[in-house]
Amino acid sequence: MIIVMRHGASEENIQKVIDLIKLKGREAHISKGESHTIIGAVGEKVIDPREFELIDGVKEVIKISSSYKLASRIFKEDDTIIEVNNEKFGGEYSGMIAGPCTIENEEQIFECARIMSESGVKIIRGGAFKPRTSPYSFQGLGEEGLKLIRKAADKYNLAVTSEVMEISQIPLFLKYVDILQVGARNMQNFNLLRELSKIKKPVILKRGLSATINEWLMAAEYILSGGNREVILCERGIRTFEVATRNTLDLCAIPVVKKLSHLPIIVDPSHGTGLRDKVVPMSLASLAAGCDGLIIEVHNKPECALCDGAQSLYPEQFRELYKKLKQLAPVVGKKI
Amino acid sequence: MIIVMRHGASEENIQKVIDLIKLKGREAHISKGESHTIIGAVGEKVIDPREFELIDGVKEVIKISSSYKLASRIFKEDDTIIEVNNEKFGGEYSGMIAGPCTIENEEQIFECARIMSESGVKIIRGGAFKPRTSPYSFQGLGEEGLKLIRKAADKYNLAVTSEVMEISQIPLFLKYVDILQVGARNMQNFNLLRELSKIKKPVILKRGLSATINEWLMAAEYILSGGNREVILCERGIRTFEVATRNTLDLCAIPVVKKLSHLPIIVDPSHGTGLRDKVVPMSLASLAAGCDGLIIEVHNKPECALCDGAQSLYPEQFRELYKKLKQLAPVVGKKI
Amino acid sequence: MIIVMRHGASEENIQKVIDLIKLKGREAHISKGESHTIIGAVGEKVIDPREFELIDGVKEVIKISSSYKLASRIFKEDDTIIEVNNEKFGGEYSGMIAGPCTIENEEQIFECARIMSESGVKIIRGGAFKPRTSPYSFQGLGEEGLKLIRKAADKYNLAVTSEVMEISQIPLFLKYVDILQVGARNMQNFNLLRELSKIKKPVILKRGLSATINEWLMAAEYILSGGNREVILCERGIRTFEVATRNTLDLCAIPVVKKLSHLPIIVDPSHGTGLRDKVVPMSLASLAAGCDGLIIEVHNKPECALCDGAQSLYPEQFRELYKKLKQLAPVVGKKI
Amino acid sequence: MIIVMRHGASEENIQKVIDLIKLKGREAHISKGESHTIIGAVGEKVIDPREFELIDGVKEVIKISSSYKLASRIFKEDDTIIEVNNEKFGGEYSGMIAGPCTIENEEQIFECARIMSESGVKIIRGGAFKPRTSPYSFQGLGEEGLKLIRKAADKYNLAVTSEVMEISQIPLFLKYVDILQVGARNMQNFNLLRELSKIKKPVILKRGLSATINEWLMAAEYILSGGNREVILCERGIRTFEVATRNTLDLCAIPVVKKLSHLPIIVDPSHGTGLRDKVVPMSLASLAAGCDGLIIEVHNKPECALCDGAQSLYPEQFRELYKKLKQLAPVVGKKI
Repeated sequence: MIIVMRHGASEENIQKVIDLIKLKGREAHISKGESHTIIGAVGEKVIDPREFELIDGVKEVIKISSSYKLASRIFKEDDTIIEVNNEKFGGEYSGMIAGPCTIENEEQIFECARIMSESGVKIIRGGAFKPRTSPYSFQGLGEEGLKLIRKAADKYNLAVTSEVMEISQIPLFLKYVDILQVGARNMQNFNLLRELSKIKKPVILKRGLSATINEWLMAAEYILSGGNREVILCERGIRTFEVATRNTLDLCAIPVVKKLSHLPIIVDPSHGTGLRDKVVPMSLASLAAGCDGLIIEVHNKPECALCDGAQSLYPEQFRELYKKLKQLAPVVGKKI
Repeated sequence: MIIVMRHGASEENIQKVIDLIKLKGREAHISKGESHTIIGAVGEKVIDPREFELIDGVKEVIKISSSYKLASRIFKEDDTIIEVNNEKFGGEYSGMIAGPCTIENEEQIFECARIMSESGVKIIRGGAFKPRTSPYSFQGLGEEGLKLIRKAADKYNLAVTSEVMEISQIPLFLKYVDILQVGARNMQNFNLLRELSKIKKPVILKRGLSATINEWLMAAEYILSGGNREVILCERGIRTFEVATRNTLDLCAIPVVKKLSHLPIIVDPSHGTGLRDKVVPMSLASLAAGCDGLIIEVHNKPECALCDGAQSLYPEQFRELYKKLKQLAPVVGKKI
Repeated sequence: MIIVMRHGASEENIQKVIDLIKLKGREAHISKGESHTIIGAVGEKVIDPREFELIDGVKEVIKISSSYKLASRIFKEDDTIIEVNNEKFGGEYSGMIAGPCTIENEEQIFECARIMSESGVKIIRGGAFKPRTSPYSFQGLGEEGLKLIRKAADKYNLAVTSEVMEISQIPLFLKYVDILQVGARNMQNFNLLRELSKIKKPVILKRGLSATINEWLMAAEYILSGGNREVILCERGIRTFEVATRNTLDLCAIPVVKKLSHLPIIVDPSHGTGLRDKVVPMSLASLAAGCDGLIIEVHNKPECALCDGAQSLYPEQFRELYKKLKQLAPVVGKKI
Repeated sequence: MIIVMRHGASEENIQKVIDLIKLKGREAHISKGESHTIIGAVGEKVIDPREFELIDGVKEVIKISSSYKLASRIFKEDDTIIEVNNEKFGGEYSGMIAGPCTIENEEQIFECARIMSESGVKIIRGGAFKPRTSPYSFQGLGEEGLKLIRKAADKYNLAVTSEVMEISQIPLFLKYVDILQVGARNMQNFNLLRELSKIKKPVILKRGLSATINEWLMAAEYILSGGNREVILCERGIRTFEVATRNTLDLCAIPVVKKLSHLPIIVDPSHGTGLRDKVVPMSLASLAAGCDGLIIEVHNKPECALCDGAQSLYPEQFRELYKKLKQLAPVVGKKI
């Protein structure tokens, strides 16, 4: 941490800062410039920058940010590549995950699995437990849903990913699912993250609606620090003042994350935009920006979907998009 | 839901809208104006406005918002008043909760309890399980902390409130704590909310960092809908672009909530501002805006606090503030 | 405008709404549903929705939004294509504008113009009047700068674009510049927009840092409504809570704008990200999302630039990027 | 500026940083800690932090913020008190400005002036040139409006404030108006600010919708730096994701500004909330937070107002509020 004193700060106040640094178990390095005195607080002990802000004469207190270690590219220079059912995420690979928002019934999920398989997709998505803003909305089929998607996936040789909402559901997910998803609302459910750090399957960690990239990598650190090294980050839009789209997809998060971290980052353009006709251009844009994968909602009959049908692609639309993505990939040095 | 057609929309497209409304199990009411045709979709079935946006000729689709019922002032016209240890929240009453951010050790929590009691406070706060952005930060004393705060509170005749982070912790909290808090990061942890709807103790529901007031009331609805009618809303700042304060305290949420809902709303100026010298003016401002209570961090030795010391008041500062709040209350028709 | 009454609203309050609609010179259409009575206020007279919100029994007041006409795709179905110096923006064309942030001196701007010309660029950018947050920062060369860029452009057969900050500067710009830019901070400087509506040259209208897409199109309407039909919209990032990048580039604005309006939309990835190494992926992503052009900062010696050097590309980087953009364009049906 | 190198950064990269600091005309101070090497760039020359971010091995670059001087409390320790027509803003004084949103006609403005005068107000507000989002909305009476408000004010012994939108209007305002207002949309219209720095009348500078407090003080610096020392800052709400209110009134800006600057800060709860029934609690909250004044919209017949009637108080409501403000003021050490 660095404390910048105001021009003309008294010696007494400078001393107060130094004393507080020592009280907190760190070492103080003083450097007097023409206009400002700068004091570094060196060491590993955690200290709260705001305690210094309250001392008179302090102009600014600067925290040297963060503290993710295992998630950092300094800790691991090479890209982490995660492989599930022969589909790869990270490095030169962009993987594809697609399927319906929600598992609705046997017919629907088998039909979706068939379509996915025929389109060349290797991992199907589908929600069994749904986080809904209203307690009166459809909350998903629960375990029954997980069973159905597993059966459908097995028939068509697909891997499965689905969102886990709570610690007690983890054993169920380990039984039926290949990749566990943590939703945006649970990005800082630290108890859940800690439990997921102990499992042996990959976790997709969605970015919280108002999470900074730094907080997101800190959340990933929770999972990594317990021993699970297979974390896939997923950008899905942040909350801003703009109301024309459901969320604002922050595609610049892709190059930012890739510089800071070795973890793969994928994009969910379906939740990120909320509207089918925006999913196609945003998928292409995501790949052009260098994403390591996409997770896209596709439904056999979007107009009949129980949930989020408006953001689900028609099967034909998805096939068309997948073809374009394959044309685009080599331009940006990716394989999809 | 209301669908507004563009000026000059074709009859065919108008018919498509009507057909979709019927397919979704609602009734269509058409009203043709000079410049726009407006179609109401009447009924209770849930439909997704975005499916209509994708039809040509549709100018705008308007959802008639919300759907909280039990939280609404229409459901219950009178203010809900919640009483704990003779301290009241709601109606003409503004209650006070104060204490340290975190339970650190026996000496500290007993000393804090003594100070609270001597200052006239009847409910003490203190964290035992701490949600920390970094996995490497101090995570709280856990059950040991709850035991300590209970003992200290009993000695000084105080009630206790503390933050519950996870379903499995609920039995512990029921044993030691009088009011359970749900933190901002858990505001949409729907499984947790659902479990809290079954308990018989009041719940403080903090507003999420990027939660709209509508989403916040919907989260309260989760708790109410299971049978727990004692929900206290707590404004604690929202995330904006401004970096001068930790969060932006949205005090206008007070009159907005009081118009929409009968539930009491309190303010946490400590987390809302993040800095001790802002806590005093923002506490006074909250009461002037009509809040039903305050939850304030006070520490016997803020400069030694393990967590958030910079936003904790000194005991003397708190006593001074409490005195001013008592002078201010009658001006705005409140009792504190 | 549509007024939705609460379930159980009194006849008296319904009548109050109807009376106010008539007082304001509009016609009232009433439609009683099972759960809500809905009242449409039909007509062209401007009324303020909030006056209705204040009547008891009113649940919600819904404004049928906006009111840009000339900017709307309903007014003009075909894409507007704007051509300057054989470079086209709009429809199937993506145009390129590149050059330094600021005109610094004769040598620099001639060198930049030479590089641009050799790279195949036809329009050069360069600031002469700089909007600077601090009054003590370099404010640009003024008219001298405009003269220099004109001379350099003429030598290399380039068109010129530069930012106009104030009404009194317009005559100067008409003399030296081919496309006038309105900066983000001036997007709602309505007096300036009105004057620009009278000129005969294209205007690039940058999106304000906190402007909704609707407000942006309304600002374009100011220019269109005075008779200037050559408006190019430019997305350059919005202000959000994220601090890892200077602004959050909202690429989904591209398909949103293209659905609502016939005007071309280009992207400024240099200001939108603020960092050179983010400019390349975001340029590719913009084109993949369907943008009608790019405006990119390139400097002959970025590390010596007087302003924004960190976001300026090296000449070689730019040439490489331009090549990739040309490979990407046909995949998304664009010509660049 | 301070450059923090990553743990393990190479000597070569450290040297690159040092070289760049020297190239930019500053001095480098190196301080090697256990975990990080920290390099201070001492001196007055402006440098762009991002150029350092692009060097390998750089962890973080920290700008020592700002650079407003005349606006800073270090430059002038005592509160600036601005007095107009015996009404004072700053220090222990909270001044009052009230009146209609817009000057509509002679009868209305005289009636408003009479009401203001009888209520004890000494400064009337009223818009003559209106910044409107749509080019088709009422744009104000212009000079005719200024003449009318001056006549009405003179009759009732009031001072006048009104919003200036453009440089060419300044002479008109100097003739008719006592305090000039700069609207939120013009907060960074630097050319306008520079002209206002040369006049001899106070200027109310409203905070931009997405302006940080630092940018706002930098905008004030533009006015101060040209010689006009009478700047009144005005908080009027910032743009956030919340849609329940027009803007989010950031009342914590009051204590933040008062710590950083000697300038008076007032609040506009009418634009800050957009709804009449929120104006009363937010006015009281503003004063409780320590504001140096209020600017409130009051209309003789709000339901007939041409503009923003929904946020205008009724005369009786205003009188009641003013009375309460006078009761509240002594509690927080203010005179109103």
